Amino acid sequence: MNPLEQQIAFIVELDKLKSILRQTLLMDSSRRENSAEHSWHLAMMALFLTEYLDQPVDLLRVVKMLLLHDVVEIDAGDTFGYDVQGYLDKSEREERAAARLFGLLPAEQAAECHALWQEFEAGTTPEARYAVAMDRLQPLLHNLRTQGGTWRIHRITHAQVMRRMQPIADASPRLWAYTLQAIEEALAAGYIQP
Amino acid sequence: MNPLEQQIAFIVELDKLKSILRQTLLMDSSRRENSAEHSWHLAMMALFLTEYLDQPVDLLRVVKMLLLHDVVEIDAGDTFGYDVQGYLDKSEREERAAARLFGLLPAEQAAECHALWQEFEAGTTPEARYAVAMDRLQPLLHNLRTQGGTWRIHRITHAQVMRRMQPIADASPRLWAYTLQAIEEALAAGYIQP
Repeated sequence: MNPLEQQIAFIVELDKLKSILRQTLLMDSSRRENSAEHSWHLAMMALFLTEYLDQPVDLLRVVKMLLLHDVVEIDAGDTFGYDVQGYLDKSEREERAAARLFGLLPAEQAAECHALWQEFEAGTTPEARYAVAMDRLQPLLHNLRTQGGTWRIHRITHAQVMRRMQPIADASPRLWAYTLQAIEEALAAGYIQP
Repeated sequence: MNPLEQQIAFIVELDKLKSILRQTLLMDSSRRENSAEHSWHLAMMALFLTEYLDQPVDLLRVVKMLLLHDVVEIDAGDTFGYDVQGYLDKSEREERAAARLFGLLPAEQAAECHALWQEFEAGTTPEARYAVAMDRLQPLLHNLRTQGGTWRIHRITHAQVMRRMQPIADASPRLWAYTLQAIEEALAAGYIQP
């Protein structure tokens, strides 16, 4: 295959992410969210919240990371954020998936994608910290608007939510203050277990 | 509302784009595509096909345009690309939608979004030409993989497809050569009316 054929094959493969369902419900509770539309939502969020970061970020790198970060789920499936069992072999399953899926692209693009995805997973650069914060903040917004959503369904506790949301604190004190207030409201409403 | 509350209100509103259905089918024909996952797919495509452009583009601007370009459909609905009647009042409906939806954001961000959306609609800058080309190429890839998909269902002719795909020619000779070959294959397979 020539490079364009490789790129088209990857683009065609991407369509499958639209059929990977997450635990999160749409805000009107009509159905579960899929990982493609979720990725779009996070990339959009990242465009509008940069002013709350303490240090500048390369926004194109952030957006690339967010668009790409769930592609591995085409092979590895979605692992619920509070699923302890699922997390045991998550990185092994996803590494295999990354190798196959990004490997559909020409070598240079495959390497860039793989590196961006690993950067997101590590969550240590300013760009990755911001991207991971978006990935935590968005389901919180959904849960608040669906009477607790997946928190209520899975009887998630306050301590679990605080741990899960920690990347928002690492990315932005201002967004963390907003998050803390939202968690308190969720607790008061009975969406989260004490 | 303070700026963060305005931004969150916009982000919450965006969730509705996941329920706006396009005519296009997913490549496994399981259901119609929604405009949020479509926008994600186009932004992803744009990341990988820049080498086929004759002039450099600001990729972040392209990606922003693609992420944003269908947000107006939350109010205005999706207008099928071959719907002559629907196109009569499309720009009027969408201008109203843009004013309301982007108007949820703080003024500076609202103005930037509105300008980016208008730039996409005009399709004249290098960034907009590339973005519009992605918006044409993606449904073609879907139609080829769904036995003609919306072309077959709506009995679209070769002349209609050629007109609709013209933005790809304007953006990239190399992608246009690929498109022409795909259209010939679709014609030979009976997916498109002669």
